[in-house]
Amino acid sequence: MREALEQPGLISLAAGFTDNPSLPVAESRAIIDALLRGRKGQSHLQYGTTYGDERLRSLTAQRLAQMDGRSKRDKGYEPSRVLITHGSQQLLYILTETLFNPGDIALIEDPSYFVYLSIMQSHGIEGRGIGMEPDGLDLASLETTLKTLKQSGELVRLKALYLVSYHSNPTGITTSAAKKEMALKILRSYEKPAGHPIYLIEDAAYRELRFAGTDIPSALSFHNAAARVIYTSTYSKPFATGMRVGYGFLPDPLLTAATRVKGNHEFGTANFLQQILSRVVAGEGYEEHVQKLRKRYASKARAMTRAFKKHFPDKVKWEDPEGGLYVWVNLPKRVKTDMKSKLFAEALKHKVLYVPGNLCYCDDSTRLKPNHQMRLSFGSASIKDIEEGINRLGRAIKKVL
Amino acid sequence: MREALEQPGLISLAAGFTDNPSLPVAESRAIIDALLRGRKGQSHLQYGTTYGDERLRSLTAQRLAQMDGRSKRDKGYEPSRVLITHGSQQLLYILTETLFNPGDIALIEDPSYFVYLSIMQSHGIEGRGIGMEPDGLDLASLETTLKTLKQSGELVRLKALYLVSYHSNPTGITTSAAKKEMALKILRSYEKPAGHPIYLIEDAAYRELRFAGTDIPSALSFHNAAARVIYTSTYSKPFATGMRVGYGFLPDPLLTAATRVKGNHEFGTANFLQQILSRVVAGEGYEEHVQKLRKRYASKARAMTRAFKKHFPDKVKWEDPEGGLYVWVNLPKRVKTDMKSKLFAEALKHKVLYVPGNLCYCDDSTRLKPNHQMRLSFGSASIKDIEEGINRLGRAIKKVL
Repeated sequence: MREALEQPGLISLAAGFTDNPSLPVAESRAIIDALLRGRKGQSHLQYGTTYGDERLRSLTAQRLAQMDGRSKRDKGYEPSRVLITHGSQQLLYILTETLFNPGDIALIEDPSYFVYLSIMQSHGIEGRGIGMEPDGLDLASLETTLKTLKQSGELVRLKALYLVSYHSNPTGITTSAAKKEMALKILRSYEKPAGHPIYLIEDAAYRELRFAGTDIPSALSFHNAAARVIYTSTYSKPFATGMRVGYGFLPDPLLTAATRVKGNHEFGTANFLQQILSRVVAGEGYEEHVQKLRKRYASKARAMTRAFKKHFPDKVKWEDPEGGLYVWVNLPKRVKTDMKSKLFAEALKHKVLYVPGNLCYCDDSTRLKPNHQMRLSFGSASIKDIEEGINRLGRAIKKVL
Repeated sequence: MREALEQPGLISLAAGFTDNPSLPVAESRAIIDALLRGRKGQSHLQYGTTYGDERLRSLTAQRLAQMDGRSKRDKGYEPSRVLITHGSQQLLYILTETLFNPGDIALIEDPSYFVYLSIMQSHGIEGRGIGMEPDGLDLASLETTLKTLKQSGELVRLKALYLVSYHSNPTGITTSAAKKEMALKILRSYEKPAGHPIYLIEDAAYRELRFAGTDIPSALSFHNAAARVIYTSTYSKPFATGMRVGYGFLPDPLLTAATRVKGNHEFGTANFLQQILSRVVAGEGYEEHVQKLRKRYASKARAMTRAFKKHFPDKVKWEDPEGGLYVWVNLPKRVKTDMKSKLFAEALKHKVLYVPGNLCYCDDSTRLKPNHQMRLSFGSASIKDIEEGINRLGRAIKKVL
């Protein structure tokens, strides 16, 4: 992959980078200038706490309550439940260290976020793939898997369902509120035989990047859900990826345990970044910036799907994305897409790079990994490069077909 | 501890925070302003790579070679060996994940950095305490411990010696170059029976904070040492703790493995912070700032030891620090200092907080943990508070004596 990326003239539709020209340079400069001119300038350059800046925790809780249509005084939205991390990725990592033991099992969307699969693997966690439908998690598949685990006596090792619930990486799928609520109920009904809580890890990293349709509430908003839902999200993607500030809402005792681990990692998220972000989120500039970003990604996504129609053979299928950074592309089943496939080599020869779909499926010996899909990102490439990249990819596909 | 810290009027000489008034507000503002006005402003707010910014890695390697009196082309100082992390703490964490398995053994200074002890504990690593002398590691104690491990067949589990080599946290001791070189030789001589490399982890976090005596070269500078030395340090303490940028020099295959783990943590250190730091380190302002800081800590350290002489009974002993943030104080052996001790309670009653010495000793069943020492920090308290704090602590000690 690395080698491929160094090829001159290559158009990468693989990386999950964000749009470069819309990064908020002027906004950041103004905020930092004010921050460092203020009377308390020094304190912003000093260590913070391990949990994170109080103001940022509070603003984050308030904002989530508002997005979920709940009062900030509702259960689950207390600022004291928030842990600030270096991106939500770090929260997922720390949570995994905290919640799982080697040999434990996690339920994972089929397909799911491949870096999370790598975290699981490095901690000796087994995955069980759950099928997906256009409106999210396939509840029948969830039930079947849970039943199988119960019958085989493996339920005692099951700790959580990991769900990229909004505009999923890699599929772009959003799981509906009704399905999330049902999934939570189903998980709960297996807690007795499991002998411990089964958590829903709701990774909402792409929630703010919706550019079509309407937002839906998080799983935290459901009745009595706060004790079982871990909600994670980030300011990296909606504001600035170079600043790496994310967060999670955690129930105790997970919060306490995760905070202890976070202290061992690096005491806490860089305080300077948190001070910047707390001013960003408190100001009007944040909402404006996210609005601008949504328009930008909408036009990039449109450019990509328009190019699909122009350059891809009819047999190639996809769903138009409503947000996020990705489109998931299905080829006829006989066309392999993995890194050793003819298509991957052909694409490289045409100087275009995609993420092979098989990388996004967890190791689950109870099913075969599909190998005829790809993840394409419209995040960082320019519209011109998106159009040219899809043109090249179309030619590569036609050649292989 | 947390409760104690919230007591109004308390003077904490416990925390390892740095001096607040000397944090480089104006310098940071100027650098960031230039950074975000430049043509490539956006790129500084975008993701970086997992290894870290090329320029910062290169400057870091150059600077270390210079401090060690070596050429930047010498083996061990290649920028490609540098991994940038969120503080050197994170490097220690990732290294521990990478190098050790549960049940492994690490050799640890007696006493050592208590957060590292906590990292070890959370990864199931056993410690063996090595005695200390005024010029560092007690080599006879190192030999004895290694012999014992060999005889008991435990050498196969020994992976590394962890050494806070400059102005140690908590003792302020610097291990001499001769001793570091000998320690490395001794470790090497046990590799054959161990059946694998035994690394020297040189934590040089306080190296730049020397305010008396002369700097000594790192263990990396010794002949053929680069394959066995992991050198870690930080820009947090000499520049700004709120920015959390540290680094390590690692031999392969540790570097490759650690970088993979770092990718799983959060892809890489916040690029924006790295861009700031690379400009800081490239400029003349950095050296000036560190000089200023050294003077500042020298005067704080002097204020503290002067206050010792004025307020402590003769039986209380310490070594005047030559750098870092800490003084290690020895009380008569019968005076316990742990958190349940009379002295700790009495100190709190007098509204002053210290770190009990016993917390700085690893769990090692082959020796008893000393319990008559304390770590005092002159880092963050003002000179006035240092004087008043030691006055209070003196009264508490006298009361218990």
